[in-house]
Amino acid sequence: MRILILGGDGFCGWPTSLHLSACGHDVDIVDNFARRDADLELCADSLTPIEPLEVRRAAWYQVTGRDIGFHRIDVARDYEALLALLQDTRPDAIVHFAEQRAAPYSMKSSWHKRYTVDNNVGSTHNLLAAIVEAQLDAHVVHLGTMGVYGYGTAGVTLPEGYLAVRMDAQDGSEVEEEILYPVNPGSVYHMTKTLDQLLFAFYAKNDELRITDLHQGIVWGTQTPETGLDDRLINRFDYDGDYGTVLNRFLMQAAIGYPLTVHGTGGQTRAFIHIRDTVRCVQLAVEAPPERGERVRIYNQMTEVHRVIDLAGMIARLTGAEIDLVGNPRKEASHNDLLVSNRNLLELGLDPVTLADDLLQEVTGIAERFKDRCDRERIPCRSRWVAEAETDRSGLEGDARPV
Amino acid sequence: MRILILGGDGFCGWPTSLHLSACGHDVDIVDNFARRDADLELCADSLTPIEPLEVRRAAWYQVTGRDIGFHRIDVARDYEALLALLQDTRPDAIVHFAEQRAAPYSMKSSWHKRYTVDNNVGSTHNLLAAIVEAQLDAHVVHLGTMGVYGYGTAGVTLPEGYLAVRMDAQDGSEVEEEILYPVNPGSVYHMTKTLDQLLFAFYAKNDELRITDLHQGIVWGTQTPETGLDDRLINRFDYDGDYGTVLNRFLMQAAIGYPLTVHGTGGQTRAFIHIRDTVRCVQLAVEAPPERGERVRIYNQMTEVHRVIDLAGMIARLTGAEIDLVGNPRKEASHNDLLVSNRNLLELGLDPVTLADDLLQEVTGIAERFKDRCDRERIPCRSRWVAEAETDRSGLEGDARPV
Repeated sequence: MRILILGGDGFCGWPTSLHLSACGHDVDIVDNFARRDADLELCADSLTPIEPLEVRRAAWYQVTGRDIGFHRIDVARDYEALLALLQDTRPDAIVHFAEQRAAPYSMKSSWHKRYTVDNNVGSTHNLLAAIVEAQLDAHVVHLGTMGVYGYGTAGVTLPEGYLAVRMDAQDGSEVEEEILYPVNPGSVYHMTKTLDQLLFAFYAKNDELRITDLHQGIVWGTQTPETGLDDRLINRFDYDGDYGTVLNRFLMQAAIGYPLTVHGTGGQTRAFIHIRDTVRCVQLAVEAPPERGERVRIYNQMTEVHRVIDLAGMIARLTGAEIDLVGNPRKEASHNDLLVSNRNLLELGLDPVTLADDLLQEVTGIAERFKDRCDRERIPCRSRWVAEAETDRSGLEGDARPV
Repeated sequence: MRILILGGDGFCGWPTSLHLSACGHDVDIVDNFARRDADLELCADSLTPIEPLEVRRAAWYQVTGRDIGFHRIDVARDYEALLALLQDTRPDAIVHFAEQRAAPYSMKSSWHKRYTVDNNVGSTHNLLAAIVEAQLDAHVVHLGTMGVYGYGTAGVTLPEGYLAVRMDAQDGSEVEEEILYPVNPGSVYHMTKTLDQLLFAFYAKNDELRITDLHQGIVWGTQTPETGLDDRLINRFDYDGDYGTVLNRFLMQAAIGYPLTVHGTGGQTRAFIHIRDTVRCVQLAVEAPPERGERVRIYNQMTEVHRVIDLAGMIARLTGAEIDLVGNPRKEASHNDLLVSNRNLLELGLDPVTLADDLLQEVTGIAERFKDRCDRERIPCRSRWVAEAETDRSGLEGDARPV
């Protein structure tokens, strides 16, 4: 298959590009290096030393003999270039990672809120409009988030996108319908993914575009079999207060002897997935496209559910790290239950990597190896969900969980 | 109250500005003249001769002694100017009409789809972000559309925004929740209003903004008591294939002896409201703001439900016009039932103008008076919902219903 990967230089995009290339697909990356630019803005950097994309691509060619193309396009702003690329390459599938993906970053200021909305809605809608204009029948595989559902499930198992509900008809009878699960996003970032869902639903209905939306849990881990083939292929590892995800932040904190920063009680229950499973899930989705005219396929791309405090405890036991309960910059419930269905991807053949299998390896393999590159100043989360006066303490630190 | 009207030069915005000014409120209009620019683009014009905004404002001052302020700002693009205006004027309420509001226009081309999404999402999100940044407690009153619900109601009365549903919990019990009514927009334009809803829900939850969303039916009529005070205050009347709404198009067609263009069977059932009631509803909403921390208030701003073919028949009987059944450029059901609750606005005191009261007056008062200004070339709807090859005939004409 000919596959375009929008955002193919990022944390999920890069290993996915390599994995799909390794599977024999013809892969082209589209990226505007927004993620590397955000590092410059935040004075942050990946714990792992990542190479420029040109070096990465050359290394991949050297190691495997396989070429990955590259097109520098801002998908949210340069519609004409995107359209021309689609008309030119006529891909079979387009994997869409071209979105700002950090919840704390999306809440830093008005500018960050507006950038996140403009970029994420713009990239998704430009893509859909361009596919229609190019009269292309490409399958769009989008990285969504479990966060569209919110975390107050009222005892209901989170279904894969669609929920069966019953309501009263005017004549007194009961009607049953399957609806898009009612959303409850916890940040501007998560909200953009709920907007994406409605864009997808409209274009699937009006233009019969073929779309799969992967509602991913919080990703942990760094390397995949492909990124591990050569140090120049190494994947990024974010530990800063904006882009670092909770489990990777704990791993790095343990490696440098920094207390594990847990927000509030740590009673928040969240869904997790290893980056190795992310790339497999995208492959499974790409290789099983919906029919034209089908509604949007939605899969929950997660493999395990844990409470944040339990994760901290697990890592503390493995490493001897201390746990520090700090104030929570987010506006969220202090604890919740979470029941999630992930049958679709299991049925397509996913065999998950679990924390129990792999956690210690991640600590020693990555966090320990590169701990000297850590800048402790970048660890605290400085974003606040509501204005300063309304939070209960200042100088908060945070576990950033950009799912 | 100090009130900003975003989009205050438009079809609903202008009479609303006058009405709120007449009620004793201090009104400032914000507009970028996008609606007048669209006329230039489409080589179309209002059937009624509308004056430049400066002339309108001067006439209002002359007639009533009341001043309406004006600020030329592109709300979707010039965030800094909007923020400065909010910080400067600190309004009590902001009425938000600053959106591209024609469904056929939103479907004309990729450019029009993208413009509609960028403009409507941009204006709404800029407004919300600016209110938070300005630490303002202004009540936002937004003009939504009945079209967010879609028109397949499965026998359920369309509630005012929120629907009570029952679902199965994991333990086998039944859970009841009130959710935002599942959306089913019929055009890119309508879709943007479903995106607005999610933006509003997030900012009401995270920042406790006070928001009322008015899901309006298809507006008909032209004048209000205030726009009728002086010819220089006259409201616009759109009859072209993009911006003309179905009933006003029928009225104008009858006046010039053009057959009433009904799409398909005309079995589409829609909700309607007179422009005089629009301005009253906005006033009622503005004067009854929600509390801080309340969820978004949603009212169905409509007064009557009719089938399109019945409207055509009514006007044919009144005027002797012929009816022409033409192909439907829209992708929509050929007929539907529609049951709508509009209790909230009735309880606030709305006393509706009905078609039975006022229809003939509209034909003779406006359509007949200005019929010589009509350009017949502008009547057909040239937009198509899907690519040409998929429609059943070419050269379609249309009833444009930008609700």
